[in-house]
Amino acid sequence: MSERYDIAIVGSGPAGITAAINAKIRNKRIIIFGYENLSNKLYLAPKINNYVGFPGISGKDLTEKFKDHLKEMDIEITYERVDSIYAMGDYYALMVNDKTYEATGIVLATGVSFGKPFKGESEFLGRGVGYCATCDAPLYKNKVVTIIGYNKESIEEANYVSELAAKVYYIPMFKGDVDLNSNIEVINDKPVEIIGDSHVNKLVLKNSEVETDGLFILRDNISPDQLVPGLLVEEGHIKVSRDMETNLKGCYAAGDAVGKPYQYLKSMGEGQVAALNAVSYLDKLSREK
Amino acid sequence: MSERYDIAIVGSGPAGITAAINAKIRNKRIIIFGYENLSNKLYLAPKINNYVGFPGISGKDLTEKFKDHLKEMDIEITYERVDSIYAMGDYYALMVNDKTYEATGIVLATGVSFGKPFKGESEFLGRGVGYCATCDAPLYKNKVVTIIGYNKESIEEANYVSELAAKVYYIPMFKGDVDLNSNIEVINDKPVEIIGDSHVNKLVLKNSEVETDGLFILRDNISPDQLVPGLLVEEGHIKVSRDMETNLKGCYAAGDAVGKPYQYLKSMGEGQVAALNAVSYLDKLSREK
Repeated sequence: MSERYDIAIVGSGPAGITAAINAKIRNKRIIIFGYENLSNKLYLAPKINNYVGFPGISGKDLTEKFKDHLKEMDIEITYERVDSIYAMGDYYALMVNDKTYEATGIVLATGVSFGKPFKGESEFLGRGVGYCATCDAPLYKNKVVTIIGYNKESIEEANYVSELAAKVYYIPMFKGDVDLNSNIEVINDKPVEIIGDSHVNKLVLKNSEVETDGLFILRDNISPDQLVPGLLVEEGHIKVSRDMETNLKGCYAAGDAVGKPYQYLKSMGEGQVAALNAVSYLDKLSREK
Repeated sequence: MSERYDIAIVGSGPAGITAAINAKIRNKRIIIFGYENLSNKLYLAPKINNYVGFPGISGKDLTEKFKDHLKEMDIEITYERVDSIYAMGDYYALMVNDKTYEATGIVLATGVSFGKPFKGESEFLGRGVGYCATCDAPLYKNKVVTIIGYNKESIEEANYVSELAAKVYYIPMFKGDVDLNSNIEVINDKPVEIIGDSHVNKLVLKNSEVETDGLFILRDNISPDQLVPGLLVEEGHIKVSRDMETNLKGCYAAGDAVGKPYQYLKSMGEGQVAALNAVSYLDKLSREK
């Protein structure tokens, strides 16, 4: 059996790290999943005027301050991507590649994915279109898989799939080196539409098209109700109470994922409230035992 | 006619200053009422672990950082105490001693008053008990007035009242010098109960009692529905939507005043949301014109 954490925090942007710091202060066993740069959105901000206490700081410098604070409190970020979270009754199971983590409470701080889905994406979701290549790879043994990758992590997934699939196409949606297995074919083109009949069979790009049996779109963020089956989402944002509780008991959410304005301090305040209420939830559970 | 501000912010704690900074970034004409130390609660905090970016900072040092940020953005705090705020239709009137300020939108960031009311306080409120001595002073010409003062500002009020009243008793509830007019009698004792019949006539203290026609309790915070007649308050906190809007159009609230947890980042996030929604309200009004 895997060890069970008190609180698992998904996301290392302003909401996630604030939740982690507050839960840690309350002596909870936490795990926080995220990225080395914490949040690319923050990291890339040229100048921030409304993080009170640091007028005009750059996103990069503020990220360093945040990382120093995490270090000071012995909080280490787990650089893994959570594929899905299942409510198991009195705990949650977090699926991360081939591992499972367990936590009694959850704080979702997953941000928002910007940009619309591709034409056909929603239509063929679950019918050849997916968001976790490593999860579904066994289905595509000796078949053709296309991966639209938005981040470096997607390269690893493509390499993994290429060991099983007959053919893998990889379409990089970011700048930088793509260190792929030699049997993967890179297509530098812009996806336009996903087509098929009962199942995906083609991806149309701006200047070309590829026939494919499976298509994985590996964005930084997947939609929260895909991440947590059963989670109530309204107009693209996780529905929360003023206590930052979602419709699932013990599952809290904060930051851009729960709504506008998309602002650092708003996210952090919510991360704090989410964590403190998750702590109350845990304390209540342990009193009931 | 007094000049009209876009947004008046009442309170200079974490919620208030964050609201001010965000409204100013959006080019709104603001006025913020508060104290030189911004928030005594923050200022006196020995060590703060969860203001992300400043691990273990003292309240005093964080206050200095906040003041630097305000200075950087040319935000000056008006060191005056708002006695009451009236909704006038398309604007609000803020009464400050003998002056009136006008603002189209309001952000209430008044914190919470800690401690219970005195025995008899609620019963005799409006029947000899009040929270603004200078407002009601004319009623007590040649009468006896007792002032329970929690801050330095209350000394000024006592001095003002002493010019009209026959006799003023002053009970200091804080440490430090009290620079009062010589005709004011200081009582160093602890108030216990307010008594009277149809009207106040006596204040009972631990070791003494005084007969009085009027009694003013000058705390740092007055309850928000006394400050803003018509404001909806539930269980001691201003009722707000997720947008931090109160039941009064154009009047927003943030921070400890709207509910627990009483935490800096939570207050600041709310102050930001309140300000940004007040800005949207103003923009909508100006489009409608």
